Amino acid sequence: MSEILNNEQWIYVKRPTGRVSEEHYRYQQSEIDTNLSQNEVLVEAKYISVDPYMRIQQHERNTYDVPHPLFTVQAGGVVGQVVASNAAGYQIGDWVLNYQGWQRYAKCHMNDLQKLDPEQAAPSTALGVLGMPGRTAWFGLMEAGRPRPGDTVVVSGAAGAVGSLVAQFAKRAGCRVIGIAGGAKKCAFLIDKLKLDAAIDYQQFPNQESMSAEILRVTEGVDVYFDNVGGMITDALIPHIKLRARIVICGTISQYDGGLDHPDLAPRFLQHMLFKRASIQGILARDFTHRMPELRAQISAWVRNHEIVFEETIIEGFSQLPSALSSLFEGKNIGKLLVKI
Amino acid sequence: MSEILNNEQWIYVKRPTGRVSEEHYRYQQSEIDTNLSQNEVLVEAKYISVDPYMRIQQHERNTYDVPHPLFTVQAGGVVGQVVASNAAGYQIGDWVLNYQGWQRYAKCHMNDLQKLDPEQAAPSTALGVLGMPGRTAWFGLMEAGRPRPGDTVVVSGAAGAVGSLVAQFAKRAGCRVIGIAGGAKKCAFLIDKLKLDAAIDYQQFPNQESMSAEILRVTEGVDVYFDNVGGMITDALIPHIKLRARIVICGTISQYDGGLDHPDLAPRFLQHMLFKRASIQGILARDFTHRMPELRAQISAWVRNHEIVFEETIIEGFSQLPSALSSLFEGKNIGKLLVKI
Repeated sequence: MSEILNNEQWIYVKRPTGRVSEEHYRYQQSEIDTNLSQNEVLVEAKYISVDPYMRIQQHERNTYDVPHPLFTVQAGGVVGQVVASNAAGYQIGDWVLNYQGWQRYAKCHMNDLQKLDPEQAAPSTALGVLGMPGRTAWFGLMEAGRPRPGDTVVVSGAAGAVGSLVAQFAKRAGCRVIGIAGGAKKCAFLIDKLKLDAAIDYQQFPNQESMSAEILRVTEGVDVYFDNVGGMITDALIPHIKLRARIVICGTISQYDGGLDHPDLAPRFLQHMLFKRASIQGILARDFTHRMPELRAQISAWVRNHEIVFEETIIEGFSQLPSALSSLFEGKNIGKLLVKI
Repeated sequence: MSEILNNEQWIYVKRPTGRVSEEHYRYQQSEIDTNLSQNEVLVEAKYISVDPYMRIQQHERNTYDVPHPLFTVQAGGVVGQVVASNAAGYQIGDWVLNYQGWQRYAKCHMNDLQKLDPEQAAPSTALGVLGMPGRTAWFGLMEAGRPRPGDTVVVSGAAGAVGSLVAQFAKRAGCRVIGIAGGAKKCAFLIDKLKLDAAIDYQQFPNQESMSAEILRVTEGVDVYFDNVGGMITDALIPHIKLRARIVICGTISQYDGGLDHPDLAPRFLQHMLFKRASIQGILARDFTHRMPELRAQISAWVRNHEIVFEETIIEGFSQLPSALSSLFEGKNIGKLLVKI
């Protein structure tokens, strides 16, 4: 009863030195049959995630992993539906989360799947607010940022998938929250939709000095800095940390166009850590994977009741995956960027 | 029955922009009488401390304090003897620790004194192993560094007042300890006297690349970095931190010749904090002042039994104070630098 399906894949074939784009991928068509081993499931991708971390793994040296191997399917999170099953508990039509990467169809062992309940939340949220970005935002802020009521919290990349959640979680923790983002549209989103206390449009500040003065003017000192971007914004902010400030390093997206292989020069700042007895903590979503039940217990109701905003930017079409990834580094999208297949 | 004594003082009169030296001080003689208010004591300095933090307070902007005021006696720790007393429990000849700064005589309220027992430890140790540097080393390492048996611990400024203690405390915690110091003499001290596992003479490595390669070769990765110096050594080390490394910022002495007012440029490194989920924590001795009893409980016996090395470099003469302070930044002395009056 085997059936043959036409598969599509994006193969990572060339290491970028600057901005990643379609030239670093090869589109490939192939056939995949529906023969399944015991406990296997065939999944058809419905939403494929593009995330900034993908570019980190394309750097020359080890980062938090060895580099992504060339000539393999681009790895990444996928929400899809079961189209064939040889695993107890999985039926055709079931929604699942897996890590099959940029391919339309894949066979997965049931241990590599997580079943989703579309009654509880839209399946795509498993790639956003109820998935890796949500986990990063929640545990990164609460465990490394340790917000206290009345703290001044600054979030860079505040309109992004992680930052927009961090900002809202910090508001719920009783903090004064200032978001940094690029452009008037994003800043309006921060104020009008996320109800932040202030927004700083970094595009208005061409250099560290002017950016730094604005951060000081708006914040009057920073207790928690949740950093998704690194670079000049971070240089400008650190001199304004307060006593026992907590800096959470979640990402350094401004440096991902090659800056990890060949770091830029920037002013030294470790003296501020000393003066303020402040801390910096790097965090990764994977360290909190086993705590997903806690995350769901905390925020599922907020999601269901629309008490938090979790914007999704949806790009349609499997063919759009490389350009969608590239667009992350242009800083155009708001919220979680997904490619709908 | 008042008596008049000839006092000597070093007055801080000019803010240095580079290396601090005698030109930033004015020597002043004056008279001081022995009339004392209730609960006051007149102290004659016997050992005056010179410490790198003094130069931090001479920077233009707020650091961890407001800048040291001009035209006042240079502040600093002093071990002295009571020469007149109007305070219960203090008698002529008693040894005390206070913060009268760079002056031969001063009147102090008894609340600003700490009585020393010369039977328990040489009084000068109250400015070193059993004082501010010891406290910085012990709590900085144990609380921020969190050494575990088998960890690889690197200490910069390892032959200095704080570093030499950190290195030995880390050995006692079961760690493999590598010291970084300048010159063959200091490195021999690290190996022969402190019994460290390895020493790196930073003067042999003219640039970050060669320094970095040597750090990797010797350490094979760093779990705890206790940093007293900052600058190029720190730039070279950070890429070699291991998963969940702890970086303790105790000082950035390489930057104290003006680099805090006008920071140097150096390669960005926050991505390594992300890759390794590592932390940076700034520490200051003052945060642990109330925990001196714990410090003494931990290390007094080691001091008494000569189980730890606590070198003192003694410079003789009140007139030598400014040049002694300046010499700290030439990196010549081993252990705690004191001026004996």
